[in-house]
Amino acid sequence: MPGSSFGEMFRITTFGESHGPEVGVVIDGVPAGLYLSKDDIQFELLFRRPGRQYVTGRREKDEPEIVSGIYNGRTTGAPIAIIVKNSDVISSLYEEIRYKPRPGHADLPYIMKYGYENWDYRGGGRASARETVSRVAAGAVAKKLLMLTDTVIGGHLKSLGPIELNEDVTFEEILCSKYSPVRASKKWLEEKFEELIKQATVEGDSWGGIAEIVVKNPPSGLGEPVFDKLKADLAKAILSIPAVTGFEYGLGFKAGRMRGSEANDEIIVKDGRLRWKNNTSGGILGGLSNGEDIILRCAFKPTSSIRKPQKTVDLRTYEETTISVIGRHDPAVAIRGVSVAEAMVALVLVDHAMRTGYIPTVKLTEEQAKIIEERWRRYVELCKPMQGSQ
Amino acid sequence: MPGSSFGEMFRITTFGESHGPEVGVVIDGVPAGLYLSKDDIQFELLFRRPGRQYVTGRREKDEPEIVSGIYNGRTTGAPIAIIVKNSDVISSLYEEIRYKPRPGHADLPYIMKYGYENWDYRGGGRASARETVSRVAAGAVAKKLLMLTDTVIGGHLKSLGPIELNEDVTFEEILCSKYSPVRASKKWLEEKFEELIKQATVEGDSWGGIAEIVVKNPPSGLGEPVFDKLKADLAKAILSIPAVTGFEYGLGFKAGRMRGSEANDEIIVKDGRLRWKNNTSGGILGGLSNGEDIILRCAFKPTSSIRKPQKTVDLRTYEETTISVIGRHDPAVAIRGVSVAEAMVALVLVDHAMRTGYIPTVKLTEEQAKIIEERWRRYVELCKPMQGSQ
Amino acid sequence: MPGSSFGEMFRITTFGESHGPEVGVVIDGVPAGLYLSKDDIQFELLFRRPGRQYVTGRREKDEPEIVSGIYNGRTTGAPIAIIVKNSDVISSLYEEIRYKPRPGHADLPYIMKYGYENWDYRGGGRASARETVSRVAAGAVAKKLLMLTDTVIGGHLKSLGPIELNEDVTFEEILCSKYSPVRASKKWLEEKFEELIKQATVEGDSWGGIAEIVVKNPPSGLGEPVFDKLKADLAKAILSIPAVTGFEYGLGFKAGRMRGSEANDEIIVKDGRLRWKNNTSGGILGGLSNGEDIILRCAFKPTSSIRKPQKTVDLRTYEETTISVIGRHDPAVAIRGVSVAEAMVALVLVDHAMRTGYIPTVKLTEEQAKIIEERWRRYVELCKPMQGSQ
Amino acid sequence: MPGSSFGEMFRITTFGESHGPEVGVVIDGVPAGLYLSKDDIQFELLFRRPGRQYVTGRREKDEPEIVSGIYNGRTTGAPIAIIVKNSDVISSLYEEIRYKPRPGHADLPYIMKYGYENWDYRGGGRASARETVSRVAAGAVAKKLLMLTDTVIGGHLKSLGPIELNEDVTFEEILCSKYSPVRASKKWLEEKFEELIKQATVEGDSWGGIAEIVVKNPPSGLGEPVFDKLKADLAKAILSIPAVTGFEYGLGFKAGRMRGSEANDEIIVKDGRLRWKNNTSGGILGGLSNGEDIILRCAFKPTSSIRKPQKTVDLRTYEETTISVIGRHDPAVAIRGVSVAEAMVALVLVDHAMRTGYIPTVKLTEEQAKIIEERWRRYVELCKPMQGSQ
Repeated sequence: MPGSSFGEMFRITTFGESHGPEVGVVIDGVPAGLYLSKDDIQFELLFRRPGRQYVTGRREKDEPEIVSGIYNGRTTGAPIAIIVKNSDVISSLYEEIRYKPRPGHADLPYIMKYGYENWDYRGGGRASARETVSRVAAGAVAKKLLMLTDTVIGGHLKSLGPIELNEDVTFEEILCSKYSPVRASKKWLEEKFEELIKQATVEGDSWGGIAEIVVKNPPSGLGEPVFDKLKADLAKAILSIPAVTGFEYGLGFKAGRMRGSEANDEIIVKDGRLRWKNNTSGGILGGLSNGEDIILRCAFKPTSSIRKPQKTVDLRTYEETTISVIGRHDPAVAIRGVSVAEAMVALVLVDHAMRTGYIPTVKLTEEQAKIIEERWRRYVELCKPMQGSQ
Repeated sequence: MPGSSFGEMFRITTFGESHGPEVGVVIDGVPAGLYLSKDDIQFELLFRRPGRQYVTGRREKDEPEIVSGIYNGRTTGAPIAIIVKNSDVISSLYEEIRYKPRPGHADLPYIMKYGYENWDYRGGGRASARETVSRVAAGAVAKKLLMLTDTVIGGHLKSLGPIELNEDVTFEEILCSKYSPVRASKKWLEEKFEELIKQATVEGDSWGGIAEIVVKNPPSGLGEPVFDKLKADLAKAILSIPAVTGFEYGLGFKAGRMRGSEANDEIIVKDGRLRWKNNTSGGILGGLSNGEDIILRCAFKPTSSIRKPQKTVDLRTYEETTISVIGRHDPAVAIRGVSVAEAMVALVLVDHAMRTGYIPTVKLTEEQAKIIEERWRRYVELCKPMQGSQ
Repeated sequence: MPGSSFGEMFRITTFGESHGPEVGVVIDGVPAGLYLSKDDIQFELLFRRPGRQYVTGRREKDEPEIVSGIYNGRTTGAPIAIIVKNSDVISSLYEEIRYKPRPGHADLPYIMKYGYENWDYRGGGRASARETVSRVAAGAVAKKLLMLTDTVIGGHLKSLGPIELNEDVTFEEILCSKYSPVRASKKWLEEKFEELIKQATVEGDSWGGIAEIVVKNPPSGLGEPVFDKLKADLAKAILSIPAVTGFEYGLGFKAGRMRGSEANDEIIVKDGRLRWKNNTSGGILGGLSNGEDIILRCAFKPTSSIRKPQKTVDLRTYEETTISVIGRHDPAVAIRGVSVAEAMVALVLVDHAMRTGYIPTVKLTEEQAKIIEERWRRYVELCKPMQGSQ
Repeated sequence: MPGSSFGEMFRITTFGESHGPEVGVVIDGVPAGLYLSKDDIQFELLFRRPGRQYVTGRREKDEPEIVSGIYNGRTTGAPIAIIVKNSDVISSLYEEIRYKPRPGHADLPYIMKYGYENWDYRGGGRASARETVSRVAAGAVAKKLLMLTDTVIGGHLKSLGPIELNEDVTFEEILCSKYSPVRASKKWLEEKFEELIKQATVEGDSWGGIAEIVVKNPPSGLGEPVFDKLKADLAKAILSIPAVTGFEYGLGFKAGRMRGSEANDEIIVKDGRLRWKNNTSGGILGGLSNGEDIILRCAFKPTSSIRKPQKTVDLRTYEETTISVIGRHDPAVAIRGVSVAEAMVALVLVDHAMRTGYIPTVKLTEEQAKIIEERWRRYVELCKPMQGSQ
């Protein structure tokens, strides 16, 4: 099986290269009756858009077009195709890498797999972060559908390089990080992150970071034993993102150093409902969502395309050489990666919510469509710049 | 879609509960012509078997029966069904949990999903570690097929609770850890792990641990952009294992704290072949295997079933109560988890090797079958107790 | 992808050879809470059982065992594995075909695909009609679940060789044909079919036949445009049955010779509901079920294993030879084929009913479980021998 | 699972409505290195194009654009997206059907499934034959890849209404039928078909027809027991085409009326190879291709949209009314259906050839790419107007 599709009931298929005419996604499995406009898509695309401060210099308007599946502003049950034109492409910047695969980049593995002669070196082709536009566009539709179960997904950058957030953060702060140019959830953190980024830019270097995604109010019982556990599908979704090198949920790797009596979480009764006291399992137990907030983290390695000269090999001569990558690249892919991680989480949750029966697969009632629309408006409003932020 | 199947070209479907008559697996997609005996399966089952020292007191012989797909000692191309009888089942031990869901365990989420009246509480049903017998049995077949590309998979326990291995380890040591009762790769480490385990047993507690899996000599180019990246499918495979709470490969979470100039790995020429100098990316770059050893780690939380009393709720009264789990449980699931993680990695690799064309999907030539058999014998011999081990 | 699984939400995986220890099926995706006993399975197996008059001489009790997925007589949501032992196997009857592939049989194509050395010639291996036991067992579970939408599936033999039923048949007659040894829906037809069969047996020959399947009261809207149309998935299901060479629904091939003004079916209002007047489209329009009875037919070729000598080639010498097949074979596979076709239709319908949301994917309410049980009892009673039949 | 995707290894996903801006297809799984131009696609689109004589009056240029997956005229291994703009859309013709569902058409079933308010009535939306543009475009790529095994697919109209071809037809004649405006393989047949069509047009009526598809030189061993038999996947592919009501291969329904001794096909040795004497099984035995030509037929019902007034119901009043469909519709969908059936057969064969290992999944060698290109040129030349045809 080829690998351009994701999901079972809510299934996306992406296409398009960084330097081709467009990138796009076909979303199959959206029930009929959902109100959907290009503004809904654009809202989410805004936050992964290049051209924001501190991310790649490439300036794309990233205006989505919905070319199928909509009639009178609502979905029809037919597949929804969304395309985004590639408008600001400068392929000449890539001439040097034609023969000098970039360390830490997909260049050489792609050549090994598909053959040098078939390698679209301009902008990284499918391995480019540009591909993630399709994911975020589809993620917007998934997030909107999840309004039916009143489930909201937020993400923020928990650490950038050596700087880490170690205090509590509210879900509101997380949502507001969307407007932070460095996806920080606190003003002081934003400043520290910005400083780090500026310094990296000056040095022609980059930083890794760790994103945290929080899902408020997920339905319980999502996940299918024994292989399609919710944690398993989330891990796949997250690891499918370029530059992600690790995934954990709840206590994560810390659990590997703990005793059972510490890691286990007491079951309690709260408001007449069975709940868990400390949510140490990050909302997933036995591979199933348990109704508590889902909390997961992922590590993004530093951008591999850096200006600082690095050793590589010239493919024509097999001699050692150096490369200084002068394309327009983010100093930390983790920043925009937060949006992509949110989108992937949304895709997994909506898929499982449909598998489980929480979200209808064929059509929404008029009432459901309206509830979704209303909650979506509220969500868009909740995502606002934090005080004092840009 | 239900979740009892895994893989695309090499596809397994598992069934059976902890306290039912048997657990089993159907393996579909094994090419014809492979020599396969129940001894091959048994060899791998041996190392996840309960009843070894320091793992659960349950004593199963775990003798596999191959009930289809074999003719004259070789596979026919038909699905291979393997069953293992459940011989040492004491359901009475589970009477207490019937109304007291165990903290940290799948009990309550299963009840939430499937209904209390349909909950097979005896031994955890499908959520029991017993289910992993099927995975290890199928993994044995996968490992054997991978001999065709001369790819070998080894695993060991890198840390247990606070004790961590911080020195280099050879692949031979890793293979020998199979015979260590605590999956340690060094004698001194084995002793420290054992001490920890004994203490936990005394205290009625358990420990988490971190397993490391190393794949020697994988083919390059495994993984399908953009969603079925090798790292993504490995992450799903690993997170589908009970008790796993995190996954990382290569630098993993450390990469999230590094600069690009540190994390990137120089491309070099070695023996006329393009290689990577430090393998910081753990054998996977751009989501594809790059021909270097694949290195990944996963965290196992501590066994949630412990003797130490824990707070929970009585489902009949919704009142607070405590539970002291007296079933026979491992003091650290991570120990047996190593075998399961190896198996899951094997399943992913053989699947991708078939998708990519390295391993034939329909039948092996006589020569291929013999090469596999020969290498398998060598592998079985390589796995031997380390000097001084039990 | 290998081919031993069928279905998306209600997914079956079959295993086992004609002359192995057992045949079996794993059913994944059955919601929790369904009452299910081996008697339910046995009821349907009864009608495809060898050893009935006029079908193969092989005498199997065909007693199903449910080895997983059931607790206290109800499904738990876990995969259900059902096995049936092979008890009456005489492999010696197959010695001759070892080197003489039977004309019209899968022998030679299997050898071409999997290699002569891997060919399990005894009883046809997986190509044997014995494999369909698994389908009928799974079909019983599917039929039972379909009781939730009050949907009942019946089948009968519409023609055998040159003898065809050309008069109207009631659904009750169709259900009663289950007890007819030749699956006839009328007494006079039964007699004619029996005569034909006796004559074929005497002559060492066999007959083809055409089965008709009728689905009473299917939900509307089943089928997923544009590739998983209901008619498409039914066609695949039916053509996956050994010996089936054609499929049609509604007017079928006749529509290919008609005018639009003849073939189109008037839309009318009946009892306040939109209906179709003549159901020329056999319950499926635009690829979707439209709420009318689903009517489809399929052709079974004559049993290829016949006593009459046929020309073939000796694989050892590549010389012409003849073969007279002396195994125990049906004089018309179409007879038992009716049960298999019913089962395949049930599998498709339940799968689509789950995809569409008519049948829950996770668990049944107590009320739903009871409705199903009650309707199942009624269905079992409705299936009774027709007056004067054996 | 939604239904807009088809295939496992060579996987297509289609999108777009009849009266939307474009229709398109994403093809995932095309190996790198294939020479592919829009002319290759256009060649096949030419023969299903509306605006040819006797087919719908709608005049589309149907110029395909390849928007991803190609670099320097060759495939890269990335998904290939092909779009075709909808240029000649007159939605006003559809105002009448807005409240009057057409008999024999998908209108009412779509309303039942997705809700009246979400029904894109203009031009039939996804249920329009326009959707098959995507299939034929993808089929062109599949056909090209099949050149690697020297496999060529041809189709013709075997009967139209009461007129049937009952004499032998050569594969060359079949290929030349592409240029016949009525897909006839003989000059005399063309004339008879044309007469029938003209008369139907005058009368505001339409005709059904039966298409035959022949696959020359398929590899043996295609098909995966037991559910993904080649015949099963072909049946699904063919029945997924709008208006198809039946499928048969080899003797087809005739086999249902025959004796085993007639229907069975002798195995012979020819040119040192094991062959079948009469190919009564149409190239598929035991569900696997056996190396003989694959021969299948399918019935297309008559176009349901006809000018002749038909009874239906007004959805606003639930009163009886009549409709005379005045859109531009084919007098026999079977004519253009031949191209679509060829495409679907190509999709199935290339998918199975990749599953079986005949066609590489990742990349073609330079030599393979050249062989394909050469054979494709030859094929294009072989398809030429028959003498005396238009």
